[in-house]
Amino acid sequence: MCVFVQSMSHAAAAQSANIIFICVHREHYGFLETMAPHLEGKVLVDLSNNLKKGMYPEANAAYLQRLVPGAAVVKGLNTLSAWALQNGLLAGKQVYLCGNSAKAKQAVGEMATKLGLTVLDRGSLSAARELEDFPLRLFQEWRLPLLVAIGLIAFFFFYLLIRDVIYAAVEQDKNISYRIMISLANKVFPIVSLIMLSLCYLPGVIAAFLQLYRGTKYRRFPDWLDRWMLCRKQMGLVALGLAFLHAIYTFIIPIRYAVRHKLISTVVNEMKNNKTTPFYFDDTEAWGTDSFYVLGILGFFLYVLLGLTSLPSVGGTLSWREFSFVQSKLGHLTLFICTAHGYIYGWNKFLRPSTYKWYTPPGYMLCLIVPSIVLVLKFLILLPCVDRTLTRIRQGWERTEPKEEMVMTKATNL
Amino acid sequence: MCVFVQSMSHAAAAQSANIIFICVHREHYGFLETMAPHLEGKVLVDLSNNLKKGMYPEANAAYLQRLVPGAAVVKGLNTLSAWALQNGLLAGKQVYLCGNSAKAKQAVGEMATKLGLTVLDRGSLSAARELEDFPLRLFQEWRLPLLVAIGLIAFFFFYLLIRDVIYAAVEQDKNISYRIMISLANKVFPIVSLIMLSLCYLPGVIAAFLQLYRGTKYRRFPDWLDRWMLCRKQMGLVALGLAFLHAIYTFIIPIRYAVRHKLISTVVNEMKNNKTTPFYFDDTEAWGTDSFYVLGILGFFLYVLLGLTSLPSVGGTLSWREFSFVQSKLGHLTLFICTAHGYIYGWNKFLRPSTYKWYTPPGYMLCLIVPSIVLVLKFLILLPCVDRTLTRIRQGWERTEPKEEMVMTKATNL
Amino acid sequence: MCVFVQSMSHAAAAQSANIIFICVHREHYGFLETMAPHLEGKVLVDLSNNLKKGMYPEANAAYLQRLVPGAAVVKGLNTLSAWALQNGLLAGKQVYLCGNSAKAKQAVGEMATKLGLTVLDRGSLSAARELEDFPLRLFQEWRLPLLVAIGLIAFFFFYLLIRDVIYAAVEQDKNISYRIMISLANKVFPIVSLIMLSLCYLPGVIAAFLQLYRGTKYRRFPDWLDRWMLCRKQMGLVALGLAFLHAIYTFIIPIRYAVRHKLISTVVNEMKNNKTTPFYFDDTEAWGTDSFYVLGILGFFLYVLLGLTSLPSVGGTLSWREFSFVQSKLGHLTLFICTAHGYIYGWNKFLRPSTYKWYTPPGYMLCLIVPSIVLVLKFLILLPCVDRTLTRIRQGWERTEPKEEMVMTKATNL
Repeated sequence: MCVFVQSMSHAAAAQSANIIFICVHREHYGFLETMAPHLEGKVLVDLSNNLKKGMYPEANAAYLQRLVPGAAVVKGLNTLSAWALQNGLLAGKQVYLCGNSAKAKQAVGEMATKLGLTVLDRGSLSAARELEDFPLRLFQEWRLPLLVAIGLIAFFFFYLLIRDVIYAAVEQDKNISYRIMISLANKVFPIVSLIMLSLCYLPGVIAAFLQLYRGTKYRRFPDWLDRWMLCRKQMGLVALGLAFLHAIYTFIIPIRYAVRHKLISTVVNEMKNNKTTPFYFDDTEAWGTDSFYVLGILGFFLYVLLGLTSLPSVGGTLSWREFSFVQSKLGHLTLFICTAHGYIYGWNKFLRPSTYKWYTPPGYMLCLIVPSIVLVLKFLILLPCVDRTLTRIRQGWERTEPKEEMVMTKATNL
Repeated sequence: MCVFVQSMSHAAAAQSANIIFICVHREHYGFLETMAPHLEGKVLVDLSNNLKKGMYPEANAAYLQRLVPGAAVVKGLNTLSAWALQNGLLAGKQVYLCGNSAKAKQAVGEMATKLGLTVLDRGSLSAARELEDFPLRLFQEWRLPLLVAIGLIAFFFFYLLIRDVIYAAVEQDKNISYRIMISLANKVFPIVSLIMLSLCYLPGVIAAFLQLYRGTKYRRFPDWLDRWMLCRKQMGLVALGLAFLHAIYTFIIPIRYAVRHKLISTVVNEMKNNKTTPFYFDDTEAWGTDSFYVLGILGFFLYVLLGLTSLPSVGGTLSWREFSFVQSKLGHLTLFICTAHGYIYGWNKFLRPSTYKWYTPPGYMLCLIVPSIVLVLKFLILLPCVDRTLTRIRQGWERTEPKEEMVMTKATNL
Repeated sequence: MCVFVQSMSHAAAAQSANIIFICVHREHYGFLETMAPHLEGKVLVDLSNNLKKGMYPEANAAYLQRLVPGAAVVKGLNTLSAWALQNGLLAGKQVYLCGNSAKAKQAVGEMATKLGLTVLDRGSLSAARELEDFPLRLFQEWRLPLLVAIGLIAFFFFYLLIRDVIYAAVEQDKNISYRIMISLANKVFPIVSLIMLSLCYLPGVIAAFLQLYRGTKYRRFPDWLDRWMLCRKQMGLVALGLAFLHAIYTFIIPIRYAVRHKLISTVVNEMKNNKTTPFYFDDTEAWGTDSFYVLGILGFFLYVLLGLTSLPSVGGTLSWREFSFVQSKLGHLTLFICTAHGYIYGWNKFLRPSTYKWYTPPGYMLCLIVPSIVLVLKFLILLPCVDRTLTRIRQGWERTEPKEEMVMTKATNL
């Protein structure tokens, strides 16, 4: 990745420049050692990246600094593409810098700011390793949520495949395999979406109960809980994606061949067997299904709102109170409405024996377990007596020995 | 909210630090007075928040400055959560700073910038009160639009409930209460959405006529108009939310029980009473309903476009001319198309006496009043003679005594 | 556009201010020449805009600098509206500055940063002309994609109008003109959307083959290719807009009068002519149409994902590798799925003679040409032998004479 090219001799170029961009592969750094006298007092920006993690024991930038001790090495800008740089497509991109010389970092930072980049200072050159691993990361924080989603999708897909398609083939000798494409998917996606949404809010209630049990907020959460809490946003967005798919799958139901075929069959049967006109209109059915749809629509609407506030530019304009109002209050409301959507789906089904094919519960029952637990726990937390204690704990009160609250901080070398 | 903890004695900590974060509740500030000699010349960042508005006559930061006159107090960063700070979830968040010492503010600002925060300077310490009220604000600029929306929704809900459901129960002895869930909601939402959209554009035309009447652009608008203009964005977004709900409600119409039931009844009746095959295809009806749908789709598409450009990150990349092109030209086009969508809905209904149940006009007629007025006024403004005068006024021309246009500004202490 | 007004005499104002905003029309600049002595050493911010491009041979700011040589003229902030400035609606807006004095630029830049603006430095005063043309630009980079889209829409609209509506009128004497509104549009939009999407990825494969042919990455692409590559984002977003329209058009199909009419006719015919109950269920048809819908849904889902990552605030948080993963891997997958969606649409139609009305191929065939070419070329590039060579070229290897790779740069005056 070479940014600016000049046709001078290297030594002459080094002499005249103040900031020098090094875009050589690490193997060729040796050559710079011979140039060391010319590089005395210059700022060297190490743009190098490695092809895989942990290729070298030492970060490239640290190695460079060792070779040219008289120069101030700054690591950074290595997450940009040369093509984007050339074409000025940089406005708003976040870049990271690190280096031992504050002055050198400032010089490079100012130049980057002029190009429209947002510069984040990551401290001394010891962070260079982390920065060099950055371009190799690929949606790291998305891994766990995606793995959970894929696991759940696979499980429910096979579970419903057995219960619906294979059961029909074995017990009723009917081939309904065409349902795999849409009907089955349209059961799996909402089920996994609801579970993922409840997994967003489960760590929050666990944390609250942990604080209540410990009687203090000043002890760190266990690592697994911290890691879980840090990928809540990604979990929620995966859940939103699945809810979006569920919505579209639902919208196209009536144009499907099988659905139209069934509708026509119903009419023809109605004509042949049932001679009453107008035939019976089931008011309870109308109320039940309409409530089911309305809860689905409102749930999806709130889902989308939550997704929008998680956009960096929208979330950035919200104060902490507004953000936590949306993500906590509105989030739990979304979970409640979507769970109710699930309960109404089964309102008149859970008593029928035909629901429990091969003695297995249907998918929608399984998917309601986690959300119900989260909602019950959240409800317990909202009870006045529990809520009061928790609020006091979160304001700094401790059950055992109240520590002094005054805190002073040395923040010069942040 | 305590950011950095060190286990030194307070005096020792104060001695060694340059920037000290104060995260004590205001009641404990007294203790800092005793420390004043150690705090001489330090930068104190007041992170405190109050539990409600107007608890103290003086801002916390001003009180702190009075207690420790030798230190430079900077108010700010109080809209962040400690948890987000700990976990580095700050990139892109906007924070505000204020303080009497420019140097102290700069030091804190630089530190915040390194953390990825976007710092907005709000001037001297007299703004501290405003900053302390920030975290207590909850979607302040959304209040009026949401109140208007809720009021309109409630009005139209009961209006249509009486006209549709109660009328049918009283006059025709039919129970169609199941319609409340979806049919009624799907009338109320588009009605309120269209009215809210027109309320976005009404202040603009009022402002234009005010400028025409006054013959100058140099007089401030009345306060109510200014406040109205400042919440246009929120009004538009609420309108978009309702339009989104209207769209989804419409998409699921064909899978509803009542709709399928009615379809089957129609076929059965068709078979019994009408023996002609193929039965009559009403070409006008096909054109009319299709045009109605197309206008709805295009209107919704433009609506979504408007919503996207109001995202901070999208709007930020547009120049003023582009932004006003989208929001004004495209906005009025959206209003025009959505209003046409409403007119076509009633194209063959407004002459039927059955439309005026209990001598009341249907909902769609009521909702067309404000948009029609806005469109007529806008059309008047676009007339060449009016447009020419208005353009001249907006370029600085004044009808009465043209003032000198040169303006000089002292902007050192901005 | 006048930002801050003070009621002092001009000379007094100039004396006391350090930064002076000039918001006079260019015609009145002459008056400033007489003030030159008072403006000595001041920073003059030229906010002026012109009414059209190329009105004057010299940029306004350059002209101002010539009139008042003793002052430091900075051009900028001219893309903001005074109203937005007054009401503090600036946070996150990008503004450009240019000027010959670095110190003056810095002073203006700092003030703008305090207002929440993002400042991009565009170098010396010679860039003033470009900055003055900025507010006159109206979606410049959108022009080409929009023109291509409009051209394609017009072509396919008339092509399908002739093949569908006019053919039916002439050959079968049937009036199906009502189909223009929705059925025809719902063919044109997906066709153009798919072509536009493939036009996004065509320049990428062309560039790859060019690099393979030349054996180096160090030669610039021809201008037309560069320009094409720079509007890929806009092309993709136009394609997404059309896909969005296609989706909504599809969702409302079942509530259309003509569709319900046809459904009822089908039932009535079924009853009259076909006495078998339950009548024949075509399993292949069910699989075929469902696969068609599923590919459409997944394609649309990925389309939306691509659109979301092109939002500045989302894209800004991605590293280059993540961004190129999404835009390249996911993008080609989207193209593949959407193309498959098109192929399945015609899976059992392309052999029927009735498909080729008046010896013309149907629209969906025409629209599959470009995407198929792109996918085949991309497949060739992914072949191990080709991929290996290309990767080496992109890492800096050259086929002929390998140049030295070390590059040094003078970046002080960036």
